[in-house]
Formats: sequence, C-alpha cells, structure tokens
Amino acid sequence: MRVTPSLRQKVPSVSAALRERVRRPALLKKLADPTDLAPLFKNDDYIGWSGFTGVGYPKSVPTAIADHIESKNLQTNSETKKKFNLFVGASVGPEVEDRWARLDMIARRYPHQVGKDVAKGINAGRIEFADKHLSMFPQDLTYGYYNLKKKHGDPRKPLDWAIVEATAITEDGKIVPGASVGATPEILQSAEKIIVEVNTLIPNLEGLHDINQSFVPPYRQPYLIKHVKDRIGEPAIPIDTDRIVAIVESRKPDNTGPNSPENDDSRAIARHLIDFLSEEVSAGRLPKNLLPLQSGIGNVANSIIDTFIRFFDSGKLSFATATSIKFSPEGFDHFYKHWSDYKDRLLLRSQQVANSPEIIRRLGIIAMNTPLEYAHANSTNALGSRMLNGLGGSADFLRNAKLSIMHAPSSRPTKSDPTGISCIVPFASHVDQTEHDLDVVVTEQGLADLRGLSPRERAPLIIEKCAHPDYRDLLREYYDRALHECLSRGAGHEPHMLRNAFKFHTNFLENGTMKIKGWD
Amino acid sequence: MRVTPSLRQKVPSVSAALRERVRRPALLKKLADPTDLAPLFKNDDYIGWSGFTGVGYPKSVPTAIADHIESKNLQTNSETKKKFNLFVGASVGPEVEDRWARLDMIARRYPHQVGKDVAKGINAGRIEFADKHLSMFPQDLTYGYYNLKKKHGDPRKPLDWAIVEATAITEDGKIVPGASVGATPEILQSAEKIIVEVNTLIPNLEGLHDINQSFVPPYRQPYLIKHVKDRIGEPAIPIDTDRIVAIVESRKPDNTGPNSPENDDSRAIARHLIDFLSEEVSAGRLPKNLLPLQSGIGNVANSIIDTFIRFFDSGKLSFATATSIKFSPEGFDHFYKHWSDYKDRLLLRSQQVANSPEIIRRLGIIAMNTPLEYAHANSTNALGSRMLNGLGGSADFLRNAKLSIMHAPSSRPTKSDPTGISCIVPFASHVDQTEHDLDVVVTEQGLADLRGLSPRERAPLIIEKCAHPDYRDLLREYYDRALHECLSRGAGHEPHMLRNAFKFHTNFLENGTMKIKGWD
Repeated sequence: MRVTPSLRQKVPSVSAALRERVRRPALLKKLADPTDLAPLFKNDDYIGWSGFTGVGYPKSVPTAIADHIESKNLQTNSETKKKFNLFVGASVGPEVEDRWARLDMIARRYPHQVGKDVAKGINAGRIEFADKHLSMFPQDLTYGYYNLKKKHGDPRKPLDWAIVEATAITEDGKIVPGASVGATPEILQSAEKIIVEVNTLIPNLEGLHDINQSFVPPYRQPYLIKHVKDRIGEPAIPIDTDRIVAIVESRKPDNTGPNSPENDDSRAIARHLIDFLSEEVSAGRLPKNLLPLQSGIGNVANSIIDTFIRFFDSGKLSFATATSIKFSPEGFDHFYKHWSDYKDRLLLRSQQVANSPEIIRRLGIIAMNTPLEYAHANSTNALGSRMLNGLGGSADFLRNAKLSIMHAPSSRPTKSDPTGISCIVPFASHVDQTEHDLDVVVTEQGLADLRGLSPRERAPLIIEKCAHPDYRDLLREYYDRALHECLSRGAGHEPHMLRNAFKFHTNFLENGTMKIKGWD
Repeated sequence: MRVTPSLRQKVPSVSAALRERVRRPALLKKLADPTDLAPLFKNDDYIGWSGFTGVGYPKSVPTAIADHIESKNLQTNSETKKKFNLFVGASVGPEVEDRWARLDMIARRYPHQVGKDVAKGINAGRIEFADKHLSMFPQDLTYGYYNLKKKHGDPRKPLDWAIVEATAITEDGKIVPGASVGATPEILQSAEKIIVEVNTLIPNLEGLHDINQSFVPPYRQPYLIKHVKDRIGEPAIPIDTDRIVAIVESRKPDNTGPNSPENDDSRAIARHLIDFLSEEVSAGRLPKNLLPLQSGIGNVANSIIDTFIRFFDSGKLSFATATSIKFSPEGFDHFYKHWSDYKDRLLLRSQQVANSPEIIRRLGIIAMNTPLEYAHANSTNALGSRMLNGLGGSADFLRNAKLSIMHAPSSRPTKSDPTGISCIVPFASHVDQTEHDLDVVVTEQGLADLRGLSPRERAPLIIEKCAHPDYRDLLREYYDRALHECLSRGAGHEPHMLRNAFKFHTNFLENGTMKIKGWD
C-alpha cells in the first residue's frame, strides 16, 4: 500500500524524543497523525495488535479508530457499520479493547480477552471468540488457520494490518517492543501493512527482549533454552520495513490498575503450598532451590506480581522470564526508574517460546494456575457457557510442568449466599484441563496431592482436603452413591450419576446457590 | 539382592542361541528357570515390565508367576493372596495381563491397558488405574510420583522389579529390546532388581532402536530431532548390570491377533481425509509431500497397520518412527523374514521421546486419533464412568500437532438399535481432549474443518457434516434451544442446557438407545 497523498501533506513534526528512538531516519518520513489513519480501516479488516496481559499494546491508533467511528456515528447504519477481526497475543487495556466492544466494532476476537464489555459481547453472541492455548495461537496464525474465511487480500498474509507498540526502532529497522512480546513477532510477519506506535513516554527497553526466528514445519528448529536465563535470539524483531505504512508517536502509559490485595484465603493457600514444596525438597523430589516457578493470573497470583519487585530487591529472586511484565502504575514507575538495575535479571520472550511445551517440560517447571471450578478443571466458562477471560497459558503449563498445581478458594459468594458456589463440583460444567494434567489441588481448606492416585482415590481426597465444609457432605454423598451405582453395573472407574452430574449448577441457575437439598 | 542358593543349584544349561545373544558371558551365570523365580514376588511388590501395544513384553516370567499363584491356590486366602502394582509403558499381551487380572493379581495398573479382564477389574473397583499421557508416564515414574505410597524398599528406586524382554545383551551389558521400546529405559532405571528375558525366537533387532539418555530437571537436554530419521542416542539401553538378578531364555512370540478389516465406514473416513489433505496442499498450507503423519490405535487406524508394510514395499513410505511395531502374526513373519530390508527405514524410540510435545510441535505432525464420543472428545470412559483402554498418546499428539484430526464412525450399534449410540453428543460424558486441541473432525458422513471457528460456529458445522442423520435433528434442536436460553441470560459463548446435557446418555442407560423423544 502506498501512503495516501493527503497523509503526506499533513506529516506532523518530529519530536526530539522520537528522533532519538527511531534510528532509521527514512522511517521518520512515514510519521502520521492517528486521526488521518483511522478512516483507512475497512469493515471486515483483519487486524493484529501487539499486547499481552494488558501491556505493550498500541494506544493511539485504536483510540483514533474508535473516535472516528463514534464521532461519525458509523455503527448505527448497517451500510456504514464497521466490525473488525481482532487478533492479539492476549489481553490489552480496557480503554481500547472494551471500548471497541462497547461500540460493537469487534466481529471476532482471538485468542484471549479481558474486559467486561468484550466478555459481554462474546456471551451475547455479537463477538465470535475462540479460546486457544497461548503457545499455539501465533503458530496457528502463521499456518493460515485464522484466515480460512477471509476472501480479500493476499492469502499468504493472514492480516491486513499490524498495529504494534515499540519503544525504539533500530538502525536496521527492527522493532524494540514495549512491556510485552506476546505474539508481536508473528503478527508483524503476518500483516500486509504495519503501523508502529513509538511510545516515548516509557524508556527504550532495548535489551529486555529475546526474539528468536519463528519457522514453520518442516523447517522448525529446537528452542535451545536449558536455563531460564538462556538467550536464543536477538533483542529486536526483524521486519520488512517496506510494509511499514505509518509511524506514530504515542505518549500514553499502559493502563494497568491496582493489583488485588492479599486476603486470608490467598494467605492460607500460600501456606499450604509452601508446606508442600518444603516436603518435596525433604523427600528429594525437588532440588533445594526448587525448579523454575510459573504463575498464571488470577486473584491469588496477581497479589504477588508487585511483590516480585521486592523479591528482586531483596535478592530472593535471581532471574525471571515471561512474555510480558505487568505492574500497578506505581510498580511501573518504580520499575522504569530503576530499569538499569533490573534489565539484566529479566527477559521477555515471545509467547510461542515462553509457553512452549518443549521448554516447560525440559526445565521441569512448577506450574501454578487458578481454576473456576474443579472436577476436571474449568478455567473459562461459568456454568458451562458464559466465557470469562479464556484459557490463556494454563493448559500449556499444566500439561507439561513437573508439578502442575491448581489453586482456588473452595467457595465463592453469590448474591444471596456467601458460599453459594462450590469450586469443587461433581462434574465440571466446562473442561479446560483434564485430570490427566493435574498433580496437586489447593484451596484455603487444604492441599490434595493427587500424584499416582486413581480417580476413585482422588475424588474422596479432594473432598476431604479441599472442599468447603458447607459442601463436603453433599459431595461425599454424590461420590458414594455414584460409586455404588457404577460398580453395580461394572462401570466404576470414574463414578458418576450422569442424571445428577450438573445438579449443583442447575440448582444455582434456579435458586442462586449450589446448596441442593439432596441427590434424589 | 543376592541370588538364593537354591537358584544357583538349578541353573539351566545355556543354549547355543542364547550364548550368541548374550555377549557378556558373566551374565550367563545368572541364567534361571522362571518357575524358580516366581515365588520371589511378594504381595504389594512394585513391578515394571517392558512392552507397548502388546509387543516386546516379558512372557515367561509373568506366566510362571501366574502359574505359581494359580497352582498353589494363593488367591483364595487373604493371608497368602498376592496383588502387585504393575507399571508398563502401555499394553501387553492378553495371555499375561488379562490372566493376571482374572487371577486378581493386579492391585494397580498404570498408565494404560488393553484387555477385557483388566478393564473389567478396573470398572469393578478391584484394580486402581490412572490414565496418563504416554509421554509423561516414564518421567513421572522417575520423578517418584508413583511410589509416594510405597513404604518398603529404597525410595530412590520406585520399582522392586523390572522384567524386560531383550533380543540381545551387548558386550558392555546393554539391553537390546524386542519390538517395542516404550518406557523400558525408565523402568530399568527405576528398579532395584532386574530380570531379563532374552527372546531367541525372534531375530536380534539390534539397530532398530534409538535410546537416548533420560535426565531429570534441571539437567534435561533438548531432543535434537529435526527429522523423523534423526538418531539422538545409541542402539541399546545402558543399565547397571549388578542389578540383574536373573536371565531367562524365552521362545514365545508376541501374541498379536489379526487386525480388523477395512469396512465401508473406514473407507469413507479415509476418502474425506484424503480430499481434505489434498486441498491443504493446494492452498499452500501443507508441503506437497505433507508432513509426518501420526496414527493412533482403533478400528480405522489398525486396518492400516499391516498396510504399512505394503507402503514400504511399494516405496510410498520412505521412513517410519514409533515406540513399537505391531503386526498381525503373518505380518510379523513377513517383517522378520525381510528384517534386513526394513531395518534402515524404521526407528523405535522411547515413548517419552516418540510422544514428546517438543518433537511433535517442532516437526508439525499431522495427528489422527479416534474418539469414543465427540463434543469435547472422550477417548476413554463410556458413559462417563466405564474405562475402556486409556488415553494413550492421543492427547500428546492432538495438543501439539500441526493438524489435529479425530475420526470415528458417526454412530455405533447397541443391542437393540443399530445406530443406538451417536458419537456426536451435546456434552461428552468424559473429557480427554478439549475443543482447544482439535482442528478437524471426520466421520463417514463427512469432515468438519474447525480451524479458526468459535464454539458457536463449530457446533452447527459438526452437526451438519459429521452427525449421523438419525441424530441430526435432535442435535440441531439441542443447539438451537441452548443458544436461545444462554443468549437470553448473556451467557452464550458455549451454549448448553445443563439439565439436558447428558440426556442422550441417561436415555441410553434406561432404554438402550440415545434416540430421545425430545428435549422437554
């Protein structure tokens, strides 16, 4: 695509900060104003953004597109209405993603999302969403699996547009990302046209990232990482600079909120975990300094995220790797201020590598994630149907870790009952992680070590150790009856009463609590 | 363990065949008669066998143990009764495994099994069974996850005994396996005492196997396989020969049966697959010579197993790798007779490597497996509770393949109704593979390409393309009603009526067919 004449005429002036960050001068000629770019996006366009866990996403151009659509009232008329297919490694800030959803600008959103309006649009049937393991999304994008229905454009380029945040562009035109890598390398590789938002508010994060080349089979190579510290790539993302159609300067911060505070439940869960890991070390099943720890997102996990800066400062944490870093606004201020102290102890990789089963299994990760409910584990769909956020990397880690741990409170409140939802249920109303992928379940009630146990041994143990006391008798009775019925017909491997398997859930739908009267 | 004096006195004479196979003469002094070994096995012993898909397993010693127990009537008295914890990479021949189950000699059986008496024991609650991904079982064994409850013996050796089949022992005491590798390396590494059954009936298969060293984290290394042909190890399994307590000569063949013949359904499924793969090549999403094909076991898959010799002979197949080779008895005769023609085109690896997510994802495998029912996919538990065989490697491959394909007939017969079971159901009664791991579903009715589709797009497509006509209207109605109900409460991502989700299954339990009158 050529830049339109109207854009050329209105090139904004180049700030000193931008000149310092864009070290390939020819690209500065492509400097554009986001408001001029906004009208270029057409209905049904396939758009990829940088971003992961709400950081490192483009802010100015998506906002300008929303402003354009809102101010021109385009969505009220089916002739002018624009809906886009949006592909981002994981979640981005609510001021763009949720706003796009509120304006009904999203036709399709893969493979993850966070934001009440996006979830609302998905569950209302306005947004098509498919949940995919985060490690697999970028490869499936490059395989061409997401543009099978796309009729326009070059079939070898699944996306019409990539809009990515950078903190610098190198002399040879490589992109230095912001606070996340995510799927940005594959999104850049997959797009016909590229817009780079250079964020001059945050520091140039050059050196924080490790970008390896991504080949497709039969040319894929081993990821030669044997220690969390190992680098296998270069510090910036190589691209074809001819596909850059515009550069934009942005001075908006990543819009993160405060983290949830610790509470009694999360402290109790942490205590159970520490006891368990200490015993594993004593028994010789884990080395004294453990093995690399992985933590998903969720209330328990989020409360430790800012803590991790403290662990760095105190020397408890020697090295960390991730595909994004997300702090509270105050956490980011501290981090950027002391950036030079942290930069050699932190590495951001692409999500294809960070969540790769190859590396997770090789390093023997200790994986900790939070389910919505547990039987098999449901990470995503409340009552089987209502999407919350998505699977994320949980299944990447739980399948391949050395120790696969799920932690959640044993109950959750409903409007009418402070323990109206049991996280331990007879049958998960949606299954994301199967029994074959979990070693340990923890609630504030206790920890169930399921390793080496059969289903008939596991179920009673989870009920005793992890279920909330309000539900223990009901769960015991379900299990005992199911065992009796199934054994009597020689089908007792995983005892179930299928007619009652979802009775907790249907009771909740009818009466606002999972506390049923009984199983008859 | 020292060999008991009584054994020393009864050393059998060494045959010429055995002398040729056992190239470390000191080991021949440990030659023993299986009947003398049988009484050494104690109640609650942890025993590992070689074997995978019913080949390469020990035949003489397990048979002698069963003979001993049966002839002495040990199982009728709780004082003399012996039950063992049995660990094998996957399945072994029915004459040993099923017989052990009939004699109630199995307390625990991990991580896979095939045989109606074993399944019966599991479903009757006599045998504890836990299903594990085949790639993970050997590592979890070496991690010490299966001997957490074991109170006797050395805690660093999870198993009391390893009994393995060999076709030779090298000068330096390394074990050359039979027709499977499976978990044999890790079982040998995990056992206090080793018994080697040298099978002199089948050829010395030296050169067929590729055995790499298996480290535990943090010392695990990359598996540097970039092509199915690549070797990363040595041709035999290194062991500590001091732990060999006995050598036995065996002349029993692998007890395989005839393979199921092709039928109209399997031919229809194959046609749909060939059309699909041809279109993928035309679209440039697959290379012309495809990518490595993986096939699981099951009626459709088994019918091609003997065929694969024909593909070798005709030059259509250039190279194959697996963790075991299983032919019909006639197939094995042909294979062993022309062994020198095949040996350079075939490689057997350990199941930890053959099913490794690292290699499956790197090579971009095209994976094809058969489910029991499909919504999410249930590979193992009929009606949610009755274990058939086990998960096997299906989830290893489906999670990590470039193309993850499941194929099954659209319906199966019951006693009273030739299409009484629909393989496409509203909710799988047990979940082994989730929606996040499947690209394509095929039945004899047709093929549904699910790539890039959201759950609301997938369900109707599977119903149209794959469901049996007898069930299509019922499934459509379930989906339409569920969609309406869920959307009306803003929970429509994966539409379900939980109260009716298992109605097909409960109707089958009551009336012998899934054909319900309706959804009210």
